[in-house]
Amino acid sequence: MIFKMEKLTLVKIGGNVIDDNLALKNFLVDFSKIQGPKILVHGGGKLASKLATQLGIKQELVEGRRITNAETLDITLMTYAGLINKKIVALLQQEQCNALGLSGVDGGIIQSSKRKPTNIDYGYVGDVEKINTERIHQFLTMGLTLVICPLTYSTTHGLLNTNADAIASEMASALSVCYELDLIYCFEKAGVLLHAEQADSVIPVLNEQTYQELKLQGIVKEGMIPKLDNIFKALHHGVKNIKLCLASELLNTEYHTGTSFIC
Amino acid sequence: MIFKMEKLTLVKIGGNVIDDNLALKNFLVDFSKIQGPKILVHGGGKLASKLATQLGIKQELVEGRRITNAETLDITLMTYAGLINKKIVALLQQEQCNALGLSGVDGGIIQSSKRKPTNIDYGYVGDVEKINTERIHQFLTMGLTLVICPLTYSTTHGLLNTNADAIASEMASALSVCYELDLIYCFEKAGVLLHAEQADSVIPVLNEQTYQELKLQGIVKEGMIPKLDNIFKALHHGVKNIKLCLASELLNTEYHTGTSFIC
Repeated sequence: MIFKMEKLTLVKIGGNVIDDNLALKNFLVDFSKIQGPKILVHGGGKLASKLATQLGIKQELVEGRRITNAETLDITLMTYAGLINKKIVALLQQEQCNALGLSGVDGGIIQSSKRKPTNIDYGYVGDVEKINTERIHQFLTMGLTLVICPLTYSTTHGLLNTNADAIASEMASALSVCYELDLIYCFEKAGVLLHAEQADSVIPVLNEQTYQELKLQGIVKEGMIPKLDNIFKALHHGVKNIKLCLASELLNTEYHTGTSFIC
Repeated sequence: MIFKMEKLTLVKIGGNVIDDNLALKNFLVDFSKIQGPKILVHGGGKLASKLATQLGIKQELVEGRRITNAETLDITLMTYAGLINKKIVALLQQEQCNALGLSGVDGGIIQSSKRKPTNIDYGYVGDVEKINTERIHQFLTMGLTLVICPLTYSTTHGLLNTNADAIASEMASALSVCYELDLIYCFEKAGVLLHAEQADSVIPVLNEQTYQELKLQGIVKEGMIPKLDNIFKALHHGVKNIKLCLASELLNTEYHTGTSFIC
């Protein structure tokens, strides 16, 4: 099968927007306006933790990653694949955007492997192994906008909780073989900041060497490290246009908005 | 577009099987063996009520139908579209059955209208208005087995909780235009019983006139009435092969298993 290099926009939206009904609505109105085929990967936000607290199920997070036992996996199924995914799909339908909500197990689109316990046993947590690009291409060709929740599937271990940033990076990498990709990570800050407390100290373009230096200097730290690792991984796998910006800046295509990335 | 009259099997599975892990697993192994395109419509079971109790959200059921306020709608999203739907899809994938989990809002496959309050206000409850047969046909043509949870979509009111028996009946009716349908309702009894207490008093073939008489005599009552109304509605809309049987009898094609229906 020969794929045409059509443009595809893949957006990752994080928890801070999902937790805010008005921000989510505004973001989805913007997202629905993006022309051509598009995919939205969403995180889980605080809803999983909130539901766990209500149900008296203790949650443990290591460096922002949720330790996922069987009870917690059920919680991620309920909140990610149920509540959040269907609400997003319904809001997009309201904007005449024909959305299809999917987890990685649906149509077998994302296969993963259970993360092996090292010093930490993450439990039912998966790392992406294989993206079914042909299936995704078929859905997109039908004019459907895909809304992906952060759950994947292992033939050995079944459903697995999976980091949404990593899903976005792996999907973009796999799909860059048959599409010209725009990968946009929307999050709570205006981009990579040179001074953490200064919201306007956005680095407009970041290359890998500078990234490594900023890490050594402790300017880039904590949750930003896995996020940027995912971004540079996608860049090395052929995704040329990657941007990190505020959710409210999604449609702002000016060069100086957010942080762009080069090798 | 011209559709070939290919065979399609549509199965409705009820709460009693969903609530029993082993019974569900056995049922899905059987279901996965059905040849050709197939659709599974599942109910919600007791999981929604259980979660509501755990969260302290009072549930009200009128003749088995759940009064659905905003909080209860969230519970149905979590349990029907999240927990149950994805578990079924994962179990089918394990049986090499490439399943795609859907609610009515996904790809806009089931449009409904919010039920108007009469003496009872059911809240966010929908009645099926329109099945997107072309979209469903496209998914089936891709070799996907569809797993439908009982949630639909209204352009005016958004997501709506919808009776799974009615969804199965309406989908079968709509799809009978382009497929030769086998519609199978699996439930907790061996079929329509002549004597409620006698499990082996199954009526092998039931026509509408006899049904009306059994209703008048009080032999068919309560929850069986809406179920059989849905079945006869599908029969009148062109679905020729309809059976009501035990989930464990799904693959038993002998004539005397369960109840079959004629006009």
